[in-house]
Order: sequence, then C-alpha cells, then structure tokens
Amino acid sequence: MLRRKSIKIEMGIYLLKDDSRMDQSSAGGWLEGKDMMEEKLKRLKATFAKIKDLQYAQAVLGWDQQTYMPAGSAEGRAEQLATLAELSHSLFVSPEVAGLLEDLTLWGGTLDPESDDACLLQVASRQFKKATRLSKEWVAEYARVTAVAQSVWEQARARNEFELFCPHLERIVALKREYASFYSPYDHIYDPLLDDFEPGLKTSEVQAIFAVLRNEQVALIEAIAQRPQVDSSFLYRKCPEQEQWDFGVDVITRLGFDWKHGRQDRSAHPFTSSLGFGDVRITTRFDPNYLPMALFGSIHECGHALYEQGLAKSLARSPLADGASMAIHESQSRLWENLVGRSRDFWTYFYPRLQEAFPARLETVDLDTFYCGINRVEPSRVRVEADETTYNLHIMLRLELEIGLMEGTINVKSLPEEWNDRVESYLGLAPGSDAEGVLQDIHWSFGGLGYFPTYALGNLVASQLWEQIQKDVPGLDESIRHGEFAPLLGWLRENIHRYGAKYEPQTLVQKVTGSKIDPQPYLRYLRKKFAEIYAL
Amino acid sequence: MLRRKSIKIEMGIYLLKDDSRMDQSSAGGWLEGKDMMEEKLKRLKATFAKIKDLQYAQAVLGWDQQTYMPAGSAEGRAEQLATLAELSHSLFVSPEVAGLLEDLTLWGGTLDPESDDACLLQVASRQFKKATRLSKEWVAEYARVTAVAQSVWEQARARNEFELFCPHLERIVALKREYASFYSPYDHIYDPLLDDFEPGLKTSEVQAIFAVLRNEQVALIEAIAQRPQVDSSFLYRKCPEQEQWDFGVDVITRLGFDWKHGRQDRSAHPFTSSLGFGDVRITTRFDPNYLPMALFGSIHECGHALYEQGLAKSLARSPLADGASMAIHESQSRLWENLVGRSRDFWTYFYPRLQEAFPARLETVDLDTFYCGINRVEPSRVRVEADETTYNLHIMLRLELEIGLMEGTINVKSLPEEWNDRVESYLGLAPGSDAEGVLQDIHWSFGGLGYFPTYALGNLVASQLWEQIQKDVPGLDESIRHGEFAPLLGWLRENIHRYGAKYEPQTLVQKVTGSKIDPQPYLRYLRKKFAEIYAL
Repeated sequence: MLRRKSIKIEMGIYLLKDDSRMDQSSAGGWLEGKDMMEEKLKRLKATFAKIKDLQYAQAVLGWDQQTYMPAGSAEGRAEQLATLAELSHSLFVSPEVAGLLEDLTLWGGTLDPESDDACLLQVASRQFKKATRLSKEWVAEYARVTAVAQSVWEQARARNEFELFCPHLERIVALKREYASFYSPYDHIYDPLLDDFEPGLKTSEVQAIFAVLRNEQVALIEAIAQRPQVDSSFLYRKCPEQEQWDFGVDVITRLGFDWKHGRQDRSAHPFTSSLGFGDVRITTRFDPNYLPMALFGSIHECGHALYEQGLAKSLARSPLADGASMAIHESQSRLWENLVGRSRDFWTYFYPRLQEAFPARLETVDLDTFYCGINRVEPSRVRVEADETTYNLHIMLRLELEIGLMEGTINVKSLPEEWNDRVESYLGLAPGSDAEGVLQDIHWSFGGLGYFPTYALGNLVASQLWEQIQKDVPGLDESIRHGEFAPLLGWLRENIHRYGAKYEPQTLVQKVTGSKIDPQPYLRYLRKKFAEIYAL
Repeated sequence: MLRRKSIKIEMGIYLLKDDSRMDQSSAGGWLEGKDMMEEKLKRLKATFAKIKDLQYAQAVLGWDQQTYMPAGSAEGRAEQLATLAELSHSLFVSPEVAGLLEDLTLWGGTLDPESDDACLLQVASRQFKKATRLSKEWVAEYARVTAVAQSVWEQARARNEFELFCPHLERIVALKREYASFYSPYDHIYDPLLDDFEPGLKTSEVQAIFAVLRNEQVALIEAIAQRPQVDSSFLYRKCPEQEQWDFGVDVITRLGFDWKHGRQDRSAHPFTSSLGFGDVRITTRFDPNYLPMALFGSIHECGHALYEQGLAKSLARSPLADGASMAIHESQSRLWENLVGRSRDFWTYFYPRLQEAFPARLETVDLDTFYCGINRVEPSRVRVEADETTYNLHIMLRLELEIGLMEGTINVKSLPEEWNDRVESYLGLAPGSDAEGVLQDIHWSFGGLGYFPTYALGNLVASQLWEQIQKDVPGLDESIRHGEFAPLLGWLRENIHRYGAKYEPQTLVQKVTGSKIDPQPYLRYLRKKFAEIYAL
C-alpha cells in the first residue's frame, strides 16, 4: 500500500531531490528547504497526533471493558474497537503519510540522530513499513475477534471451561499465522510476532539466551531443593480486601505513583494502560487469603506506570510516547516488583507498617522470617505467583507452546494436555485445573503471542540496570531502607523513562549499561540473594 | 460541503435517473434498480455504523471523564474528543454519504413510510442537511472547548468561583452564535439551538406554551401558599451513602433497569449515556443529609435509561438508535420520577421497604406524611430539587438567559447578577452562592444551550402519555401499588421506546395520544394532585 510519490514541484515550494542534498552554503536555498521540511514534519505530526488520539480512545474502551463494562456489551464494544482500529490504521497507511515519510527520510538523516525529530522519523518509518504489509480487513477482523475473545476468556476462566475459549483461540492463532505471512520471508514464523514486542530480536536469539538461563536456573533450584524450606504460612492468613487495597495504595504512592495522572481499579487480570498522555491507569486483583497477590501485583503494574508517567512531555501524542519495547517495559515492572519490592531493604522500611495494618496476622512474624517467606522458592502452577528462580521456566513453557502453535506442530484443542505435560516436566507439578493452567493468562485472548518472552528478558534487563544504578547512585540501599525512592525513580526517569520509544531496546541498554542484553547480572543476582536465604 | 453528484453509470450497475422512476411493469429493470438501491443502502448503513461507533467511543470517553478520569487528564481528553468528533463529522459529511443519500432519497419515498429504512433515510437526510452547514474546524473546536469547559465547570462549582468558568462559557456562547450563523436565515437566533433537541420547534412556540403554563402554575402556587405547609423535616435526617445507594439500586431494579446492559456510578451531575447499543449507564450523586437527591435522581436517570434499553434491536448502530427528541426523552425520565416515583401508589409498595432501610429516621413517619413531604411545594434555588409546581419556573429563567446570551442582550460576565435577579422575581428567593445558582447545572459547560426548555416540554408529554396509559392499561394503579412495573414498562416499550428516533416528536405524540404536545394534561395533573395534598 506504500505509494511511491514522485518528486515534483508543488504549491510553489521548492522540493528537495535525492541528488540535491541541502546546500548549506546557500542560505536562501537551505532555509527554503528547511522551512518546507518543517512544514511537512508539522503535518506528519498532526496526523500522528490524531492516530495517537484514536489509540488512546481504544485504550479507554479497552480499560472500560476490563473494569466496569456491563456483561451484555461485549459484542458492541468489539465493533467499536474494530472501527477505531480500522480508522487509525487507515490514517497511518495513507498516501499522505507515505508521501511525507518518503520526503522527510533524507532530511531526517541530516538531523542530530539523538533528537526527537530524527528518532520520530526513524521509528515511524519502521512502523509504517510493518503496517503497510497488513490488509485493512485483517486489522479490523483482528480487533473484532480479540475484543470478543477477551470477554469469553474471562468467562471460560471463571467457569474453568477451556472448550468455551478454544474456538476463539483457534481463530486468533489462524489470524496470527496469517499475520506472519504478511512478513514472509522470515527466518522463523515466530519472528514477526516477537518483533512486534522486541524490535529486531530473532526467535533463535531468544532460544539461545533461554538455553543459558535454563541450565543455570535449574542448577540453582536443585541446590535450593536440598536445603530446608523456609516458612511462608503467614502469607495465607485472611486479610480483608479493603485493608489490602489501602496498604497497596500507600506503597505505590511512596514509590512515586502520580495520582493526578493515574488511578488504580480492579480487574480479572492486572494490567497497565495509558488512556492519554499523562493518564496512566493500573489494575489489581485480590485474594483475601493470600496477601502477596494484590501487593506485588500493584507494585509490578506501578513499575509499568512510572515508566509511562515519566515520558518526556515533548513526546506527547507522537509514536514515541511509548515504552522502548516490552522487555524494557517489563524491566521496569520487575525491577520495582522484585529488586525493590522483594528486597530486605524495602521491607526494613515497610514491614513495621505492614504489621500495623495486619496486626493479628503478622505481629508474631519477624522481618527476617517475612523476607524469607516472600522469597520462598517453590514451583507453582501460576506464573504471576512464581518465585524469581522458577519464573523463567513458566516463560519457556509458553514460548514452546506458542512456537508450536505457529509452526502448526501443536493444535489449540490439545493445548490443555500439552500445557499439563510441560507443567509436569518443567515444574514437577501434577496437572491442575485449566483455570490455573492454560487459561491463567489474558495474553492469548488479546492476541499477545510473542509477548511472554519479554517477561524473561525484562528480568535480565532489570538486573543489568540495577548493577548500573548501584554504581551511579551512592547510598541507594540506605535511601530505600528509609522509604525514600526519589533517587531511584530519578535515575530511571533520567536514563530510561524520558526517552520513551526513541531508541531500540538493545541501543538503550547499551547506552545505559555499556553492553547489550546479558543474562549474567540476573544470574549473579539470583545466586547471591538465594544463597543467603537458603544458606547455600 | 454537499457535493452535487452527477448521475452516471458506475461499476456496470444501472443507475436510476430522476426522470426514469422505477418501471414496475418491467420486472428485470425493477429488480436491477431494487438490488442496486439495496446495495447502496447497505453501504450507507455500514458508514453510519462506523459513525455510530465513533459516537459511542465519544460517549465512553465522556462517561469516563465524568466518573473516573484523573484530574490531570482533562487537556489530553479534550484533544481525543476533538479528534473523534472531527473524524465522525468527516465520515458523515463525506461525498460518499452525500451521493448515497441523494441517490436513495427518491427510492426511499417508495418504501412503507413506517419502515425502518424509510425513516432512516428521512432522519439521515435531515441530519445531513444540518451537518453539512458546519465547518470541520467549528466541530473540532467545539469538542475541544466543551471538553475542557466541563472539567473547569466542575472545579468552579466546587470552589464557588464563576470567574474560573466565565471565559470558557464566553467561548461557548461565541461558538453557539457562530453555530446559529451557519443556519441563517432563521426566525430567531435561538431557533437553530432549539432545533438540535426538538426537531422543528420554534422559539416563539415554546414562548407561547410557557406563557400558558406560567399563569396557571403561578395561580396554583399562590393558592398553595395560602394553605398550611406540609412537613418534610424527616427528609433531612442523615442517611449513610451506602444505604442510600442500596435502596436506590433496589428501586431501579424493580422498575426494570437491565444491569446486564447498564450500570450506575457516581458523578458531580447525574446523567445517562449510551456507551454502545445495549450499554446504557446512569450516574447519581448523594447528599447524606437529604435522601431525595440520590433517590429521585436515580429514578429520573433510570427513566432515560429504560428508553434507551428499550430501543428495537433492528435500529442498532444506526442514526435511529436514539431518542425521538429530548422532550420525549425527558418525558420518560419525568414520568418515572414524578408520575410514578412521587405517587402515593408507588410509595404504598416502597415505603415499608424504605422504613426498613432507615428505621431510625422513618419509623415514626407514616406513609401520608411521607407522601406529602416528598411533594412539598417550596421555591428552591436548585432546579433538580424543585417541586413539580415550581420546576417550570426554573426553566423559564434559563430560557430567558439563554435567549439573552444568544441575542447579545446579556453578556456572560453579568450572568450571576442576571441569574440572581430572576431567582428573586421568579421564585421570591434572595441570592444564594453561584455554586447553587448560575453554576448549578452542567449543561452550559457541554454547550447544551437550547436543552433546558425540553425539560418543561418533557413534563407536558409525560402527563399526556400518562392519561393515555390510564386508558390503555386497566389496573395500572393497582399493579404499581404491588410494585409491579412490567405493565407500565411494557406499554412504554411498545408505544415509545422501540421506535427510537424513527418519528419526529410531534408525530410520535400525535400517533400515541391523538394530539400534539398540549399543556392541559400536565395542568390537570398538577391541580388534582396538589389540591389533595394541600386541601385546596
């Protein structure tokens, strides 16, 4: 659909040709060309702002769908989302955007490559090339199918009925295979899916990283299994929802969540969504008999939200008003959830407050016991409740299934069985219900195949950043022990958040830490932390 | 912007010309023409469905803005609403819609005039003619200005600072004057505004109806003022918000509110909004020291919601999926709020339940005292708390000010003064705060000038319908005394709701009651009810 626009004189403005790069010695010609390019850039930005508005509108509809929408509205909402998706796609893959991008590309190369405008042109060109491969019909159908599927997934999960969700997932997988076909040839059919979340990353690379992690993590888990188990029974004492809510709100407020530009609600599966620039909402869910679910869920989503709340204002309503990639996004949520939220320093400050909030449940439990309890290593069927040492195994399981679905070597109907087989072989657990198995995650219902690996990569990046922060921010641990998170948030804002989607993930990680994504800092972190907890 | 489309042969389909009306003797030609017209109608409906989706998306964003949106998001939300408004306007006033409507108009005249398709073409043509007068810039600017103004109004009201809201209202009035200019020539500059809510109605007609009402209502109020006042002190006893919420939910559930296709939330000013076909949401607000505010507010909005929940499915995602007019809409809300909700029959059923919900407050108050109390006649500064005899005076006050603003004889800065003068002369009350005066209603902040008169007209239509229902539904009063509202709701669904916007308001009222909008049934109703309560 990319329209090759011929270079011509239009509207009396002199138009640059490929072979007439701007002549800086001719001030008149330069200014004329520069003015014209700036005018084109302005038009491009105005169109992008409208597209962003449509995407925000979709986010509002999506947020509402998962928080407050009445049950009977799923079909109608699906139609609305399809219409918005189709319109924003049409606005983006228009001949006008094609022409403007083509005209501006050369000029963009003359700008400071770190400038917002240069990055905007690069990112937009990349997205344009991806988007123009898709058919309008595919885009609308995908939005329609996934909107309905999300609501069906919620019912299927509540009723523990995979059959209900199965035909919808089959349709989604078929659409995802069709999606990959738009980008053929590829090294692997899974590559185009992965690329949506992690620009440039290949399936083979992820598989290689996972191979390193797997051996090391399995060795660590085996060593831990030889040691006496730590106690965590006190985490399963009944805690009323309202008190859990209040404590969670206190925690994320102190971490820096900006309530003037965000809010928290309840939903079946926690998520973070920007409903506008500076309108970043998170959700959480409660288990009255398991305190960590809501608490660490809130901290995790708060980590995502702090990223989006920290985007530079100059990026507002542009394609750069986004995270650099899902791995970078997950690095933020996992950093706050685990490196901060599951650290002894964090609880040195918060544990007395938690004890005050739930005196009957925690007054006899000391800080050390609590700290070990929240870091207890124990294979679980549910990913979001997995400890740090087993978490990546959940990801490996999903990656295998997704690759199988895409290759066609696994069919959707057999997923529960395939799932349960792997739960046994990876985690050593007997099969559980589908609600706690193949239906546990929302991701497939919105078509997020290719998403899961980014969680594991996020863990790696979080530890890489953490080693760097330790070098750059003297007294960090001490400030956390005093409940002061401004130094940490300040570093993240300065080095990660404000850039939004200006840089590709590997570029950003390299820029900040001096090397590309590397599993070693994560493995060092795990070994050190769990050697202490389990006295290895 | 209406593009005169030349009649031509396109895509190999024979296109009817004005002078070649369908020849029914030639079966082949007929079918060819009919198929082609049906194909065009299908295309028109598909475009209308997308437009409706965009309007629903605007409704979702608007609902969110008034219920859950963080304070810092007002500017961004305004941009989003402006973009959606601009896109839906562009889709509607497109050359494609112009051509389809033009081609289909003649053919539409051959259809059963009561059919959905004939009504659709008539309503759409009317809306198209109105919409094509507006500039795209005006539409986008209006959406932007009113979105910000709503949020400012909320602050201004909370802080009792008219100055804060004043510049925004000035901008809105200027935009409304510009709006009227698109429809010049007109009999009166206020006509185009009125027409948006009451198709075809003229300012002079409303003024004539109000002149009749004013004398009769003032006579009634004066007669009441001679009589001993009824007690209503028990309505001002503290009632916790949660219990008020629960009782209100019980009431509207019994009235027939469909929770699968709707919900209720809190907002600064109660409203009803369809966020999709079959997603009808209402809001309410609470005064812990004044029970009727939330209760009658909920019943009022429920009346609006029952209308929208009762639209025929065949009208979904079309311009007919709407109320016939605001007066008809208000007739539904006022019917449920007043003719039902403030009747003795209604409370015969609900009062024992209310006493149970608030035993400490109401156990010593008998049904008769309660019934008289909720119908107490007493001039109030706040429209939504006005009794039935003084309510229309609030409307007359606003109509005068709106006409003055539009004519330019009143300026926005002087509104508080002009308002207070009229509160004194109409209602005999000393000036109150601006929060309880000129800032009390949300309407102007969203640009709803021309809206207020429809409340008074709604009262009239409600009583007209009520006289008809009494004839058509034997045993109605008895069923209400037993808390059975299905017969009433059934009649309204059958005679009003299912038609949606198929008929113009006067046509619908004539069709159902045998006469056009008539103030006499309302006056009969008032005289009878209050003669009893005040023993006139």
